[in-house]
Amino acid sequence: MSTSSAAYGPPGTPGRGPDPRAARSRAAALAAAQELLVEQGWAAVTHVAVAARSGVGRTTLYRHWPDTSGMLRDAVVQRIQAAHITPSGDLRADLVGELDALRRLLHDPVSEHGMRAVIERAGVDPVFARLKQELYAAGSRVQREILERARAAGELPADLDVDLAVDRLAGPLVYRRLLAGAEFGTDVVQAVVDGFLAAEAPRG
Amino acid sequence: MSTSSAAYGPPGTPGRGPDPRAARSRAAALAAAQELLVEQGWAAVTHVAVAARSGVGRTTLYRHWPDTSGMLRDAVVQRIQAAHITPSGDLRADLVGELDALRRLLHDPVSEHGMRAVIERAGVDPVFARLKQELYAAGSRVQREILERARAAGELPADLDVDLAVDRLAGPLVYRRLLAGAEFGTDVVQAVVDGFLAAEAPRG
Repeated sequence: MSTSSAAYGPPGTPGRGPDPRAARSRAAALAAAQELLVEQGWAAVTHVAVAARSGVGRTTLYRHWPDTSGMLRDAVVQRIQAAHITPSGDLRADLVGELDALRRLLHDPVSEHGMRAVIERAGVDPVFARLKQELYAAGSRVQREILERARAAGELPADLDVDLAVDRLAGPLVYRRLLAGAEFGTDVVQAVVDGFLAAEAPRG
Repeated sequence: MSTSSAAYGPPGTPGRGPDPRAARSRAAALAAAQELLVEQGWAAVTHVAVAARSGVGRTTLYRHWPDTSGMLRDAVVQRIQAAHITPSGDLRADLVGELDALRRLLHDPVSEHGMRAVIERAGVDPVFARLKQELYAAGSRVQREILERARAAGELPADLDVDLAVDRLAGPLVYRRLLAGAEFGTDVVQAVVDGFLAAEAPRG
């Protein structure tokens, strides 16, 4: 830590937060990584290719991200974290709102290609398998909160399997976009939510 | 055609069907391609790597499959084609049976890794995009037949959206295996089918 700060200023200089030049080169590198991911897939997101496209030096890239998986993660995660809603307590509106956020991610080129990449790499690379679990946990967290609140309030069955409910709500949307290859709107999200509620909350 | 048969026998030899040695080398190459796919992903399935592992010459491999995508397709397709059931006319039993065939494919290393590979490559490579559409059409064909028969017989609503019904039935299983990363049994298939039928065929 002291070695690294000594490289950027004289000893004793008070901390000033992140170097703005470092922040700019990080942003330029992530933008280049996102473009390469969308155009050519994860295999094209290498230190050499990102350096060539962004103009950021390879040494700087290796300092930010020793492995390409970390670079890919940072390129994707910022999109996914920004997408969640804040639940209101209205079960149907909350499910439609949160799953419509997933629908938008599935139609955003960066997060769509990021999901395709982690699905593939997770099958053969433990680093990506961990990354996929992180994205799955982060991506389904608010869905779980909505379902668990409704279960506690008696709006859903007390013995509802929340994992399976997430599969039944998010699965059709992911399948329709990544397997069937279709684009779709909020009407499909509403139909999936209404089908789920017709089976699980018929008294509503 | 005549040039190629001239290489294997004297002119005028009657046709004898495929050369058994060619069939053996094709099978050895596909087995090696399946191993590489499962161990390292699609990017490892190259003519050089398949030749090294199978002992089949590179010239022979290029004659069978000018492109690696064709080699990968043949390595995966034989698994998927063998999996379908023959519907009996009992709606619930047919849906559970056909979706349980999908569940088994999702737990077979070759078809599981094949699905992961085409989901990723389809986003950036038109050859794989076509392959994914072929696999999607072949994989959902029997589900559609079951749903359309039941709709015609009045067991499902006349205005049922069959595409969306496939998403709601197959999507949760694909999501649970490829995204959530879970292994599961026929009980999950039954729960997904029963949830769908509770929403769409409540009078049954």
